[in-house]
Amino acid sequence: MAGVTERDRTRSGRRPGDSGTRDAIRAAAREQFARQGYDRTSMRSVALEAGVDPTLVSHFFGSKQRLFAEVMQLPFDPAVVLPHILAGDRAGIGARLAGFLVAVLQSPEGRARMTGLVRAAASEDAAAEVVRERVTRDILAPLAAQLGSDRPELRGSLVASQMVGLVMARHVVKIEPLAGLSPEQVAELIGPTLQRYLVDPLP
Amino acid sequence: MAGVTERDRTRSGRRPGDSGTRDAIRAAAREQFARQGYDRTSMRSVALEAGVDPTLVSHFFGSKQRLFAEVMQLPFDPAVVLPHILAGDRAGIGARLAGFLVAVLQSPEGRARMTGLVRAAASEDAAAEVVRERVTRDILAPLAAQLGSDRPELRGSLVASQMVGLVMARHVVKIEPLAGLSPEQVAELIGPTLQRYLVDPLP
Repeated sequence: MAGVTERDRTRSGRRPGDSGTRDAIRAAAREQFARQGYDRTSMRSVALEAGVDPTLVSHFFGSKQRLFAEVMQLPFDPAVVLPHILAGDRAGIGARLAGFLVAVLQSPEGRARMTGLVRAAASEDAAAEVVRERVTRDILAPLAAQLGSDRPELRGSLVASQMVGLVMARHVVKIEPLAGLSPEQVAELIGPTLQRYLVDPLP
Repeated sequence: MAGVTERDRTRSGRRPGDSGTRDAIRAAAREQFARQGYDRTSMRSVALEAGVDPTLVSHFFGSKQRLFAEVMQLPFDPAVVLPHILAGDRAGIGARLAGFLVAVLQSPEGRARMTGLVRAAASEDAAAEVVRERVTRDILAPLAAQLGSDRPELRGSLVASQMVGLVMARHVVKIEPLAGLSPEQVAELIGPTLQRYLVDPLP
């Protein structure tokens, strides 16, 4: 690797300062993916912003796709949220999930991360693949395991379609009057759809 | 304007060959927006592909946003399709709309145009604005005028959220098992959601 000699390495095989360099690259990548999207972010632009040599970005993270996977974050922890939504009366699951989703989308930080994920997924197949794998692993698979309905994976993917569509229609394309409703109104309108997908009999 | 003198103009004030030039620019723009998306298409790249001077693209179409509005096409004519879906028994509206949508998405041409629109809308605010205006004017407003339900604009925007979400989840992010279902299965699963949004009482 350019500029690194054996003498620079510690016994662990890592250079002093490696973790600082990685953190700087991660921070710059997170910021650029969020601000300018997946397409217009490059390994080189991230290196420039992080103040490191571009070869270090490749060295630590391999590819833009892997760098994106490394720094993309959901605006909530599914391991905390899912049991809360799935516990309690089954008749209220759709309403609880809808209420949680609109609350996340109401906070500027949550909305920015969710629209960032959807926009990235729409931009290039490489980003869509990262989003698909993360959402399936961190949300849909645990949801399916805990849901207690028949065909839980199908139900999860139907829920994902309405949730992604809500983010797109309300926050990205901003279709009225949906875009201007209060979070409570949206939760009331979307809740029964999520309830049907999660719990009610499917054809 | 570069390269055009008064002598080139006809009495109508247009150059001979104007319509041919416009058509070449439109064809190149349509092709590039579809192939490489809104972000990576520029007035210059369209001019290059059309074999015309870049100033002509600005002259005829003004901005990239206006050029996109000029060439973006729905894969169906709402004036033909909507009356067919809205006519007949009200209990079957959701099923008819779902069946129509999955049929459009099943054809390679229809799928390419629909995913192209959704991807463009997700890429930049300027493209989202064009898609919002076109979808509102050509689909949602006529739908609202002909639907015969209360709060027809709200119902239209809810339908749009599920339709956009289906395009994203099934054809862009490709979330399983939704992505692998037959069109008929998808129509059966989505139909009741569209029925509720279009006709059933809303909270």
